Amino acid sequence: MGESQPDPSADRKPNEPGLVFADTAYRLAVVDLLGAIAYGELSAFERLVDDAKLAPSVRDKVEMGAMATLEFGHVAPLHDRIRELGGDPFEAMAPFEAAIDLFHAHTAPADWYEGLVKAYVGDAMAADFYREIAAYLDADTRDLIIASLEDSGQADFAVRHVRQAIAADPKLGGRLALWARRLMGEALTQAQHVAAERDALTALLAGGIDRPGLDLAAIGRMFTRITERHDDRMSEVGLSA
Amino acid sequence: MGESQPDPSADRKPNEPGLVFADTAYRLAVVDLLGAIAYGELSAFERLVDDAKLAPSVRDKVEMGAMATLEFGHVAPLHDRIRELGGDPFEAMAPFEAAIDLFHAHTAPADWYEGLVKAYVGDAMAADFYREIAAYLDADTRDLIIASLEDSGQADFAVRHVRQAIAADPKLGGRLALWARRLMGEALTQAQHVAAERDALTALLAGGIDRPGLDLAAIGRMFTRITERHDDRMSEVGLSA
Repeated sequence: MGESQPDPSADRKPNEPGLVFADTAYRLAVVDLLGAIAYGELSAFERLVDDAKLAPSVRDKVEMGAMATLEFGHVAPLHDRIRELGGDPFEAMAPFEAAIDLFHAHTAPADWYEGLVKAYVGDAMAADFYREIAAYLDADTRDLIIASLEDSGQADFAVRHVRQAIAADPKLGGRLALWARRLMGEALTQAQHVAAERDALTALLAGGIDRPGLDLAAIGRMFTRITERHDDRMSEVGLSA
Repeated sequence: MGESQPDPSADRKPNEPGLVFADTAYRLAVVDLLGAIAYGELSAFERLVDDAKLAPSVRDKVEMGAMATLEFGHVAPLHDRIRELGGDPFEAMAPFEAAIDLFHAHTAPADWYEGLVKAYVGDAMAADFYREIAAYLDADTRDLIIASLEDSGQADFAVRHVRQAIAADPKLGGRLALWARRLMGEALTQAQHVAAERDALTALLAGGIDRPGLDLAAIGRMFTRITERHDDRMSEVGLSA
């Protein structure tokens, strides 16, 4: 970047919200979105620690615990940003608690392998979805979201263990493939409930004066991409969809 | 320290075990002790996340989660040190799993306040005990143990919440005082089981050629100090012993 070019953000303090946040509807929608992600990370943390109880060894438990604490570490920066935007982190998370809690209540893993597949598939699917939305947001918010969705190593860990287990017991593959499909179905059901209730988020996707939005065709393509990535992951872990 | 004085440890790399570890029995005893502390921190982490489910609000849950992840963060440095001393962290933790798991199984909190008192009293009591032992060890091990026992803020958090709750409902105080006594009893029972089975640890307390040890009178004084500190904490939190 040439030094002679004026940078419109040069006068901003590092964490000060940009001009785009002068649009109140946009600001509220971003607070909503960050609240959803923060509560998602918080409950992912709890569930990973819970599911780690099913671990066949203390070694596996420690690996799962390390992933869980990384997820928890993402919550504070999201809360900080919500405060910078004038919101309250706990109010921002509240509207998403019911849907996310219900998702977890409906998908409690019956054993260690179901837990691993859930950690792998569930987390990656949520990350894909939020990353798709982040593409339509201002650069600061986008960077924060992408950083907070960084894979904490659970993909490698899960793929390695699930592949080994299926190699040793091919029947397990069939059961886990059905399980992954159920996870996908539950996630879509709860996402639809949230979308139907949260006008701010829906408006966010529709765009604004200075921001491109998603029309129905674009939303369709987005879900196609998310589904394709899910299928890729299923093959990667040795579960044909 | 004057520059003219030769420092016997000057040739050591930062993490290389000191001369004292040439004594195999001492090295094994330290590995044993670090294994016990590491498994204690690991299970404290799991229990804090578990007990956080009883939290009356998401805000309290997040505070408890932050304390839990700090405890988990202590596990890796302890494991690293066990490896530096030529041990395997998971083998080192194994002998203590049964006693520590049993302690937690016998002291599952029935509500949020019992969980808070347990986080406060249990953790502080374990820390007092390990700190007493650390005083008899080489400086590197002592520093590591003291760093890993650092209070992650749960004392303040617990004292504040429990005092408020007792002020609002004095009957709660009586129940929690009994609960704290039960925690103390269970901890002593399990500590005795461990002491009876782990010769290396017992030998450690007895001292060595270059290290002062604890005779029976000194052990008695140690337990008196630990009990006194427990009583001080009980007053601090508003529970007369």
